[in-house]
Amino acid sequence: MNNEFIYLDHAAATPIDSRVHDVMRPYFSDEFYNPSSPYAPAVAVRRRYEEAKHSLAQNIGGKSDEIIITAGATESINLAFSATTGHVVVANIEHHAVLEAAKAREHTIVEADENGLILAEVIAVAITPQTQLVSVALANNELGTVQPIRDIAEIIKNERQSRQVHGDITPIYFHCDASQGVGQIDCNVARLGVDMMTLNAGKIYGPKQVGLLWAGNHVKLSPQIVGGGQERGIRSGTENVAGTVGFAKALDLASEHRKYEFERLQKLRDFLQEKLITAFPNAVISGHPKHRLAGHLHISFPNLDAERMVFALENRNVLVATGSACAANKGTRSHVLTAIGLAPEIADGSLRLTLGHLSDENNIGQAAEIIIEEVKSEYARVSR
Amino acid sequence: MNNEFIYLDHAAATPIDSRVHDVMRPYFSDEFYNPSSPYAPAVAVRRRYEEAKHSLAQNIGGKSDEIIITAGATESINLAFSATTGHVVVANIEHHAVLEAAKAREHTIVEADENGLILAEVIAVAITPQTQLVSVALANNELGTVQPIRDIAEIIKNERQSRQVHGDITPIYFHCDASQGVGQIDCNVARLGVDMMTLNAGKIYGPKQVGLLWAGNHVKLSPQIVGGGQERGIRSGTENVAGTVGFAKALDLASEHRKYEFERLQKLRDFLQEKLITAFPNAVISGHPKHRLAGHLHISFPNLDAERMVFALENRNVLVATGSACAANKGTRSHVLTAIGLAPEIADGSLRLTLGHLSDENNIGQAAEIIIEEVKSEYARVSR
Repeated sequence: MNNEFIYLDHAAATPIDSRVHDVMRPYFSDEFYNPSSPYAPAVAVRRRYEEAKHSLAQNIGGKSDEIIITAGATESINLAFSATTGHVVVANIEHHAVLEAAKAREHTIVEADENGLILAEVIAVAITPQTQLVSVALANNELGTVQPIRDIAEIIKNERQSRQVHGDITPIYFHCDASQGVGQIDCNVARLGVDMMTLNAGKIYGPKQVGLLWAGNHVKLSPQIVGGGQERGIRSGTENVAGTVGFAKALDLASEHRKYEFERLQKLRDFLQEKLITAFPNAVISGHPKHRLAGHLHISFPNLDAERMVFALENRNVLVATGSACAANKGTRSHVLTAIGLAPEIADGSLRLTLGHLSDENNIGQAAEIIIEEVKSEYARVSR
Repeated sequence: MNNEFIYLDHAAATPIDSRVHDVMRPYFSDEFYNPSSPYAPAVAVRRRYEEAKHSLAQNIGGKSDEIIITAGATESINLAFSATTGHVVVANIEHHAVLEAAKAREHTIVEADENGLILAEVIAVAITPQTQLVSVALANNELGTVQPIRDIAEIIKNERQSRQVHGDITPIYFHCDASQGVGQIDCNVARLGVDMMTLNAGKIYGPKQVGLLWAGNHVKLSPQIVGGGQERGIRSGTENVAGTVGFAKALDLASEHRKYEFERLQKLRDFLQEKLITAFPNAVISGHPKHRLAGHLHISFPNLDAERMVFALENRNVLVATGSACAANKGTRSHVLTAIGLAPEIADGSLRLTLGHLSDENNIGQAAEIIIEEVKSEYARVSR
């Protein structure tokens, strides 16, 4: 990270942890062998790859052979959707990958509440006898709202049991995209009660373009990419050894520091929120007040233009986001803000400030002052 | 690369060129931004990504917006097959990715000749009025045989013209997997006459798990992975900036040194072949005697066991392959050797020796001596 910037966009991308890069480096150079080759140095590479998968599995309470390494969360989500062909239930604030995958088949899109919370009762109502998949992200990437995954899992478990009682063999699975939140929230698959879970290394200071899908052994995935039969035939292609080893290290570090980091970020975020709300009592905080990622602050300054603010802040070396990265380059209003019913004049003045490893008391204090100055100056400009 | 080994398996994996790693490194650390983020440092990352795609395109004579970056050749091949749903023609020596993708739909599998050559006439006979795709690899990864791509392209062009004349709008495309060979053979898409081409960074001293599919603007691909709409909606997911920048550098270097490297490797390979054939006149060289990759030597020692030889050579620090990497860990006989009609007692004693950047006069001379010693000792053992 270039030290001249104060980076407040950890939800869009995280810098790779140097400890992660260190464990990856050998696989870029000396240990470059194809893990399918028969000689000992290649077998050692294969073993390291399997160890990394084992470590990833252990970290989430799953088994190694339930993990498919992918090129990122989007591919994982698409693969999760391959498990069934039937009706799916998703919410209107889900990531584009989930929404697009859902729209390719029979689906029901339920509404999140005004805090971006997806209530288990709302999911329950949307489940039909034909529903085979429910997909809910652990935390919304724009608002930071953390979803009641265990409650939703309970609903799905009940539905499954009721089908069993009635001799109905239609399966129903619960997929959770935990890309946002895994560094802050417990992601044990058994405790969450999910059947499938997506993780993304690039969001937890690991290598980019590396993800995984965990799918319990009872779930039957369909290969999207066929060929040499790697990953138990589900995802062919030479294995990403460096990426997987780095991913395992990143998840290790994330798990190890999870509680500490949650508290640290929450304190910094609350400080920043307090400063901004005090300076601008008309500002609107979105996302659930309690169930929210520790580093997330979604704040709207009514009647201001978010893009102008982003550029003004960039001139002061503070990097922030407006809307989600996926939608950012399309010039359209965020579907999430529309979904939670934010009025256009509020939505259009929204900044997403996401704190993380690069945040500390010092630069968050500075950022608060700079944001206050720039927002004041914008309000002065528009009221002229 | 660990210097203690003589590496003769460049077709399975190549070590990353340090110049490639150098251009990638910033995107692992300082320049970690999401290319979709709006602020200038992220816009610079986006620009660098687009430049890398432009450079890749220029290198093969295509346009930047005709290139989809993927996680490797297998994904590229699967994506190429998405362009049509109709009948495909492939050969029996193609990579598993091609064969599996073909088998998922109506297909004809033609036979390569005893040198692993796929004759244009054989393709011509297999094309029906329903054929929408022909897929032929530029060079076979086991034998090194280089295919008559231009001749096959001519056949397909004729078929297309004949359909046009008859008012038949059924499209027919020609896809070429050039993963093996791009560092040694001209891969200009116009000169080859292909509609789609797959390349793999990991085979040309670039980063692993990075590939591309070039598809001419007249080809309509179907997205396999949906979501944020990256890569013109064909392949969603945050872009692989480091990988693409590294890929562009690797292809640059490969193109720059192509002719020199071809001659250098051919000389080394011919030297090695001559040494081995002189020592073992009963050995069988497979692959086309003339149309063959410069670094490829596929040699069979009748009645010997290839796996035993691989381990014996490994004990002498010489790393070689038996069969292709994809099939190597399955304990089955290579489908390519079966396809070219090699008798089992010959096929089972086959080594694939592939030379590359790590090969020089010195270590190839050493390798020749070691291989001769070990093969002699194996023959002595089996004749006891």
